[in-house]
Amino acid sequence: MTTLRISPTDMLDTLTKLFVDRGYQQSEAAKLSEVFTENSCCGVQSHGINRVPLFIEFLDKDLVDIKSKASCVEAFGGIERWDGKQGAGILNALAATNRAIVLAKQHAMGMVALRNTNHWMRGGYYAWRAAQQGCIAIMFTNTKPNMPAWGGKELRIGNNPFVISIPNGDSPILLDMAMSQFSFGKMESYAQNNEQLPVEGGWDKTGALSKHPQDILETQQSLPIGYWKGSALAMVLDMLATLLCAGQSTYRLGQAPEETGVSQVFICIDQSQVANSDLHTQLLNEIISFTQSATEIEEGKRPRYPGEQSFACKKDSLKNGIPVDSEVWNTVLHLKKQ
Amino acid sequence: MTTLRISPTDMLDTLTKLFVDRGYQQSEAAKLSEVFTENSCCGVQSHGINRVPLFIEFLDKDLVDIKSKASCVEAFGGIERWDGKQGAGILNALAATNRAIVLAKQHAMGMVALRNTNHWMRGGYYAWRAAQQGCIAIMFTNTKPNMPAWGGKELRIGNNPFVISIPNGDSPILLDMAMSQFSFGKMESYAQNNEQLPVEGGWDKTGALSKHPQDILETQQSLPIGYWKGSALAMVLDMLATLLCAGQSTYRLGQAPEETGVSQVFICIDQSQVANSDLHTQLLNEIISFTQSATEIEEGKRPRYPGEQSFACKKDSLKNGIPVDSEVWNTVLHLKKQ
Repeated sequence: MTTLRISPTDMLDTLTKLFVDRGYQQSEAAKLSEVFTENSCCGVQSHGINRVPLFIEFLDKDLVDIKSKASCVEAFGGIERWDGKQGAGILNALAATNRAIVLAKQHAMGMVALRNTNHWMRGGYYAWRAAQQGCIAIMFTNTKPNMPAWGGKELRIGNNPFVISIPNGDSPILLDMAMSQFSFGKMESYAQNNEQLPVEGGWDKTGALSKHPQDILETQQSLPIGYWKGSALAMVLDMLATLLCAGQSTYRLGQAPEETGVSQVFICIDQSQVANSDLHTQLLNEIISFTQSATEIEEGKRPRYPGEQSFACKKDSLKNGIPVDSEVWNTVLHLKKQ
Repeated sequence: MTTLRISPTDMLDTLTKLFVDRGYQQSEAAKLSEVFTENSCCGVQSHGINRVPLFIEFLDKDLVDIKSKASCVEAFGGIERWDGKQGAGILNALAATNRAIVLAKQHAMGMVALRNTNHWMRGGYYAWRAAQQGCIAIMFTNTKPNMPAWGGKELRIGNNPFVISIPNGDSPILLDMAMSQFSFGKMESYAQNNEQLPVEGGWDKTGALSKHPQDILETQQSLPIGYWKGSALAMVLDMLATLLCAGQSTYRLGQAPEETGVSQVFICIDQSQVANSDLHTQLLNEIISFTQSATEIEEGKRPRYPGEQSFACKKDSLKNGIPVDSEVWNTVLHLKKQ
């Protein structure tokens, strides 16, 4: 595997052309491209450039509808319920985020509950956008069943990523966490390097908790964070998403061969309206400084604030280009020519 | 240790009289008593009857102000910022919850950010009340520093309990989880029984992760759920609570000898306005049935939905009396006579 360094402009142009070739209008293609590129810039290749071929496959299989546009179906005060009509998860999530920001500016707090949508790739992107516009954002999505619930064996709950962002100049606080201790992608990379996981990551075929990625990949039984606690949180996030959207639950998503038509929630709070900005900065800095004043357990690995690492990664990508696996890049270039 | 069974009415009367003796008005004493009793009924003795002596100690030390009443200091659309004025955490949290429900009925979604308040005992109580009134509730509090942040040694983050409830007839879905894998109380009870923790619960004095409760109690370095993930979530919850309340952060709470003046957030969503109630019930039942259809890993320990266990416990307490340690009960009766 060779790692190339692709300039963000190059990636943006390449992807925009690809999506236009595939039938998207220029403005929509540019939005899709922006999100895949930004995710790659922030070091989340798995939901950036590496994911583009699968997105194209979903278009080919008509699992993502190119023509549909999400729209509001019901409104209640600061809450709106939208139907994503099986459109691209990225475009739907952008529309939902933009609308939640407008609702927050009107009501101090706004929510869009978006059903029948597709994978948003990386929830952190939308929360980051909201933070850039002065909003605190709380967002989550459900997924197909991909973890056992605590106490049971078969896959019954989703890893349901949960995202929170807080305005903080050009480096918003950004938590973007799935309810599984490790993603399958992460476990695959440990397995390829013949490494153990640093902590337990799932169950092996004897039903024991294990640090061996290969054994967990075999059973597909990954572990919720905090054992029974993350299992409960995953279940509740699915309930919230399903009920607020009046959409599909993890259970229903599991009835189809591919994950499509998920339920997502976008909550924005207009912090620029609620907060005194000097006090906001002071309080945030106090929390970060205090947390980072602890003695490092491992040299050079001091506590980080959520989002710190992806911001550093982005700065590096902007300066030196985005690190991309050469095979992935060639695959994407080839998709272009189809 | 003998376990008594105290009838809920007996506990309510005893505690109401105690709080009246200590200077509370009848109606406030009744509210305090109701929350301590309900928490005990639900099996959370640590923040029910067992906690009453410490609450009285806080009154004696003037850490809780008997006379003050929380009030709204700023309002922005569906959001209000309240000042708890160092009053009893239970009374302030009740006032904040009631107001968040009213705001939700008006705006579909409402929030009260309450600063300068005291320990709410059990967040689940307030979320349960909101659910009984047709609201989805999302609530959290910060605490003094009581865990290391991931990567650091000293205590820098709070275990910041996070609560979500969803209406579900007389048995609301109720998640009430601190960000620590185990509470210190839980670890003490494992230590007393000479038992290991079922999973890692913190660090021992050599800096290694440990399942030995005694070793963790010695360092006081308890483990966040999901290691780095719960550490990040705890940090973000503190930021949200602090910024939304313009109140004290975990950092500032740690500057005082006792935990007082915490920041809490109460979000309510009027699900009775947003949802079709038949669909709500159907979707919720599907999720629960699917999750519970998994093969049990340990016989008789099938997956539970959050709140199921405390509801069962409450039914038992109402029927057979609340299980109370006889020493605790005697201490409480003795407090009464002071």
